[in-house]
Order: sequence, then C-alpha cells, then structure tokens
Amino acid sequence: MLRSLFMEGEEIDMTKEIQIGLLGYGTVGTGVVKILENNYEHLKIKVGAPIKIKKILVRTPSKMRSALTDAKIVTDINEILDDDDIKIVVELMGGETPAKDYMLEALKRGKHVVTANKDVMSKYGKELFDQAELSHVDLLFEASVGGGIPIIRPLKQCLATNNISEVMGIINGTTNYMLTKMTNEGMDFDTVLAEAQAKGYAESDPTADVEGLDAARKIAILASLAFGARVTVDDAYAEGIRNIGVEDIDYAKELGYVIKLVGIAKQDDLGINVRVHPLLLPKDHPLASVNDVFNAIFVKGDAVGETMFYGRGAGEMPTASAVTADILDVARDIVHGSSSRILCTCYNDKPTYPIEQSVSAYYIRLLVEDKPGVLAAIAGVLGEENVSICSVVQKLKVDHHTELVLITYPVKDEGVKKALKVINEMPIVDKVCNVIRVEQKEQA
Amino acid sequence: MLRSLFMEGEEIDMTKEIQIGLLGYGTVGTGVVKILENNYEHLKIKVGAPIKIKKILVRTPSKMRSALTDAKIVTDINEILDDDDIKIVVELMGGETPAKDYMLEALKRGKHVVTANKDVMSKYGKELFDQAELSHVDLLFEASVGGGIPIIRPLKQCLATNNISEVMGIINGTTNYMLTKMTNEGMDFDTVLAEAQAKGYAESDPTADVEGLDAARKIAILASLAFGARVTVDDAYAEGIRNIGVEDIDYAKELGYVIKLVGIAKQDDLGINVRVHPLLLPKDHPLASVNDVFNAIFVKGDAVGETMFYGRGAGEMPTASAVTADILDVARDIVHGSSSRILCTCYNDKPTYPIEQSVSAYYIRLLVEDKPGVLAAIAGVLGEENVSICSVVQKLKVDHHTELVLITYPVKDEGVKKALKVINEMPIVDKVCNVIRVEQKEQA
Repeated sequence: MLRSLFMEGEEIDMTKEIQIGLLGYGTVGTGVVKILENNYEHLKIKVGAPIKIKKILVRTPSKMRSALTDAKIVTDINEILDDDDIKIVVELMGGETPAKDYMLEALKRGKHVVTANKDVMSKYGKELFDQAELSHVDLLFEASVGGGIPIIRPLKQCLATNNISEVMGIINGTTNYMLTKMTNEGMDFDTVLAEAQAKGYAESDPTADVEGLDAARKIAILASLAFGARVTVDDAYAEGIRNIGVEDIDYAKELGYVIKLVGIAKQDDLGINVRVHPLLLPKDHPLASVNDVFNAIFVKGDAVGETMFYGRGAGEMPTASAVTADILDVARDIVHGSSSRILCTCYNDKPTYPIEQSVSAYYIRLLVEDKPGVLAAIAGVLGEENVSICSVVQKLKVDHHTELVLITYPVKDEGVKKALKVINEMPIVDKVCNVIRVEQKEQA
Repeated sequence: MLRSLFMEGEEIDMTKEIQIGLLGYGTVGTGVVKILENNYEHLKIKVGAPIKIKKILVRTPSKMRSALTDAKIVTDINEILDDDDIKIVVELMGGETPAKDYMLEALKRGKHVVTANKDVMSKYGKELFDQAELSHVDLLFEASVGGGIPIIRPLKQCLATNNISEVMGIINGTTNYMLTKMTNEGMDFDTVLAEAQAKGYAESDPTADVEGLDAARKIAILASLAFGARVTVDDAYAEGIRNIGVEDIDYAKELGYVIKLVGIAKQDDLGINVRVHPLLLPKDHPLASVNDVFNAIFVKGDAVGETMFYGRGAGEMPTASAVTADILDVARDIVHGSSSRILCTCYNDKPTYPIEQSVSAYYIRLLVEDKPGVLAAIAGVLGEENVSICSVVQKLKVDHHTELVLITYPVKDEGVKKALKVINEMPIVDKVCNVIRVEQKEQA
C-alpha cells in the first residue's frame, strides 16, 4: 500500500508531469527509460509528481528503439530545446561535441541538466555551472564517475565538512578487468585486450581506457569536488597500462603487491596533484581486492578518516541507476521550489602542481650484467639523487645477465627520472625494463 | 581565495547566523563543536549563512568542557526549546529517554532535528517523522548507522530508483574488532573482550554490542530506508558472538570462510526479514576483508547491482563528520526555503517474517562417537528435514570421539532446528557444539 507523503491541506498536482528530453538512446539511455517507465508509480509517490520522458533525440531515426516508451523520437535538438514543457534535459550522448553545446543551450533556456558526460564535465564544468547559477537551475552528474556508485553526492554533501587530503580510485573498469585477468591467469596485455574487446568491455579503439585518459577525466572531476577547487582534465597527468608485463605482475605479487591502474588526487602544501598511473598496491589495501570490472573510490578526510565506495563502474543499469537518481533529485527540487540548491562547490582557487614535483615510492626493473658490484653501482647513482632502496629481488636470467627489481623509498619524481637517465647509460645495465609507482606499505 | 556562490542581485544576509542547540557534550558532541568552530568561514560560504552553536545542554554543569566554544552551557532543556533563535536541535545524548521526548518536543516547536540516536530512530522513527511532516521541518540521522560512512543519504537519494533486495553490513565495530583479534591472533572471547574494554572499544557492560542489539537497531534503520517500509528494532532477530569459539574460527578458515557479525535485511516473496547473527563469509566476499573497528555496508539493487560503503563506524571525528554534514544540509534547506524536502521515505507497508522462515546455509559442529555409520546416521536425520550436506570436516579428538563439522546447503531455519533437536538426542552424539549461519560461496 502506498501512502501519501504530503500533509493534509498541502496540494500537489499529481497529474502535472515533470517532462524530460533525453539526448541519446544508447545503452545507458535505454536503461534510464526502463527504470523511469517500470517504476513510474513509485517514483511519482517519492517525488510528489510523475516523471515522464517526452522526447528522445537520436542521430538517425533508424536507431529508434523498441516499444519501451511512447516518447517521441526526434532528430533535431530544437524539438527539445524549444519545447517549454520539457523541464529536464538528460544528456547521454557522450563526447564533447555537440553534447556540451546542447547542455549549455538547455541551461540558458532555463532547463535543468542531468548528464553522465565525464568528457564535458572534466573540461567545461565551470562554464556550465556559471550558466546553471545564472539560470537558477540544477546541473547534476552523478553518473560521470564510477557508474552506479554513489560518489558525487557523498563528496558534495556527506563529507562536506571534511578537509579531504586524498582521493584514490580504481575508476576504469576496462583496465581493471584486464589487470585482473593478467594477475589471475597470467595473460599478457595483447591477449587480454583482444579478449576484453571480444566481450565488449573494451572498445575497438581502446586508447582512452588503456592510456588512462578516461580515468584522468574522472579523477579531475573527483578532485574538484574533494578539494572544492576547479581541476580540469588538462591538469591531470595520465600514464596507461600498455607497458605492464606479466613479469611485473609476478614480481609485485612476490613482494606483496598487486598492480592496479589508479586515479590519485592529493592535496598538500604544494597544492593539488592529480594523476593516473599504474600503482603497486600493498595486497591488504582496501583497493587491492577490487577486481574485474568493479570500481572503487577511496577517500581520506580529516574527520571521517578512510572511507571507500565500491560497485559497478559502468554498464546499462548501474549507470542508469545514477542518472535516474539525479533526475529524482531535480524533480524534488522542482516540486519544492529549491532548484539550484547545491551547484558548483569549487569555492576556492588552489594551484595544481606537475607530476615532476610529486612524491612516490618506485618499483624499478632492470636487466643488468651478473657480476659483483652491480647493485652497489646502481645504488650509488640512485643515492646521488637521494633515492634510497627499500627492497631488492634478483633473478638470474640467461648468459650472465640478471633481472634486478628494486623498490625505493618515497622520492620526488624528478629525482628518479634523473637517476634513471644515468643508470640507462651505465655499461653494466642492459635495459631499464619498467618503472612503476608504489603505494608504501603501512608500518606494522 | 573564497568566492561567493551567489549570483549578482541575490541577497543573502551573511550576518544572519543559523543557531544550534546541542544536546549532549560527550565524545561526538566535542567533535561536532570542533568541526563547526574550525571550519566556520568555509561552511559559511558553502551554506550561504554562518552556522553557530548557541547553547549546549549537559546533565551536570561540572561536565563543562574546555574553551572550544563560547556556546552557553545549560542544564535545563527549556533553555533550548524556548529559545526561538535556535533553529536546529542536534541530539547527541544517546539512549531512548529523555532523548526521544526532547526531539519530539523540538520538532513540535518547529525546530529541525539532527540526531545520531539509533535507539530512538529504530523504534520511534514513524512518530518523529510524522511530527516533522506536520511541522514542515527536517529530521536527519546520517550518524545513526555506520558512524562517518555515508549510507543514509545514499540509500535515500543515490539508490532511490533501485528495488533493493538485500542489505548486509558489518555495523558494530566492537564485535568486528573482537572477531578480527580472535581470527588473527587466536585469542578467545573472554580475553579479547577484556582487551577491548581496556582499550575503550567495548563498554563495561558490553551486552548491547556482543549480543547483537546495537547492530539490530542499525539494520532496522537500514531496512526501513532500503525497502521503503517501516521496520523497527522489534522486528529484528538478534544473536550475538558469545558462543563463537576459536575452534569455529579455525574450522571456518580451513573451509575458506571468515566469521563476522552481520546485520542482514532481505526482501523476497515472503516479505522483509531482518536479523543479526554471526555468519561464515566466503573469504573473497567484499565484507570478509573488513577488519578491526571498520564498518561496511553491502547493498544489492536491481539496477546498481552490488555496492559497498566502507569506513569508520564510530569515534569522535567520524561520527561528527556525519552529524555536521546533516547540519549543513538542514542549513541549506533553511537558506533555500526547502525544509522537509526529503522526510520519511517509508511509502509502503510490507510485512516482516520471523527468523524461522528465513533460509540460510549452516555450519554445524558436533562432538560424536568415532565409529562407522555415525555420519550416515546424522545425514539421515538432516535429510528428513530436507537438509543436504555440502561439505564435511572430521577430526579425531580424544578417546574415540570425533569432532564433525558439516556445512549444509541453504535450508529453512525451522528445518535445521527440528533436525538438531533429534540429533542432540542421538546416543552417538555427545554434543552439538555450535551452529552458525553460512553465506554460500558463489558458483565458479
């Protein structure tokens, strides 16, 4: 039995639908239509007014979908922008163009915008929020990071009184799936990429995922929310997983680590540092057991301490879960006359600093000649740049050559780079095989 | 540099403080004062108005704290209830009486209420929400479950379009600390309880924690939110950890499980079932690696799939993080004139069903005579109640007696109870040592 949430005497016109224009009718769009149609009655009660998709913009009418909805399929954006009955525009086209222009125009016309678009939000967030403020409308984007995982609203509201020092996340499902396969089944990068593409987890052009750009957009968005200062994707350093070999994964395992592609946003005395790169995580770190296509975001605040948010970072229904939650919130604001209640939360200007200034421990894998004094010589070069060695693994390969794996103590990025340049030219060193950052183990 | 979040022409009186009356000045209250005082300027910008604690109610004035705040310390509740400048009452006294009466009276007088009180919210939620609706004020309680972990708002808003089938949580830090110690260090219950009391993790009367009552209150609150139907602590079954022996933990480990005290709320064709009991969790379950005083809440929704929220479930600053986030939200509602925007979300009436009707797999540890046919006889009795055995471990003890550990397939609770009654009276059975529910491993 449903009961009314309204008080006696309060009049809400339950017949007055809140109408939506949906831009894009792909995977997530289909999920949004399913949720809104299947839960129509319940959502009406929750919000205090019915929510209905009136029009759906598609690129070509041949892409019209099944009979999931009686919404009108349109191919001209103006059919939605010019329609004064449409109060909420839900943008699920993806990409920068024309999505950003459509959103900006919708905001200008006083329509609320809900989007899952990380490309646009990580680059044009300020411009869009400025317009939303001017127009006194909502702009929500929970689905832009972490799929269905609640993370935007928790950062904006639930952790709003914390000074957040760090956000670290596994925020790209494709690469996490690939690294999990490489770790558990010993598959190499190319094999696992082909498999991920066959399963639909990786796109035919996998660049944005495997090069870390997708994660860079998401960590820029999270950094803006966590630190209350605008950070764009252009402020983020991105390094992907193409160079991760099965050997690296095996050495990491032996040393008590797993390799993950993480987005990191840190705030310290220098300012804000935002980056995406592979990382050796101690195997008891909460993020270390996040496997397959799952995502998780780890947040450190001065009051709350360590928290983590875990779930499916992509897919039709998880992403639609986040999009429809935003739609509900906008609809509630419409019903309560409280639109633009929480808009941009970037109240501060804070500088970002480049990767060269960042500090991290490092895993360094070298192929060297197998003779006395080699380790000492290498340690000497590292020492000149103040790089101290924390642990060493050494394995005989072929013909008097040895693979040498070093883990350093934390050191400035530029120091490691300088030392590696020298090491690379030492006659006893055949090759610097790989260099990967390391999250230090907690002191027992 | 701070910038204004307000538009040109919009006038917000930044001198008009939103004043708070704080009930209780213990650990969490001190944390709330610290956060509000230390972040006064920033929170003013975030909310659009300054937030100030005007008065603090204490039991005895000798409990007056340091110079953290210039709030007036009072011992008479009417000094707060009668003060029309106080718009928000923050209740941190704990316990049912007089906290519930004070909250109800504050709501009646049109004051917003923020509380961390699980005792009251799990029992009198409906009464308080009805009054909040009548008075058109907010009633927020993020800190009542999971300390600093954002879970109430995510369930109310971020997952609002999901049909949630299950919530499972490690929501009592004291018992999780104890079980972690027992698991990692082989300590027995009494030793670890004494240690937890010495460290201040367990109270001198540990009943509410170790008997599962504290967790029962929290899972009742989570069930109400997850299923949109009122569930009270009286609907919840509670079984604690007093009977968990080191032997059980060792057998569980051998079989690939860890033992945790969990709160479970399930929704199925029978209705809603809410319970707290020890559970053998497969060691790769996301909750299995939640250790020490950490809490985590696992939520399954039809759209979002599996999500988890992790963090510190208690303590001065984590709990104050949640309380102050609620205060911010109430203050924003005051500024935007949107008070009572989201109140009770229990729109449905759904029946609860008792533990006897619930279905679970079971771990059964027996001491039996070591002779042929014993296992067959026991399996026969179980079979008569449709209880099938999934795995068996058998270990010779002393004098021709054997410890027999069975894990069953899922079966109705009352079936297991009936079979155990028969088994307990079999001459070949010395003792039914322990019976613990088991979360089944996923099929590979």
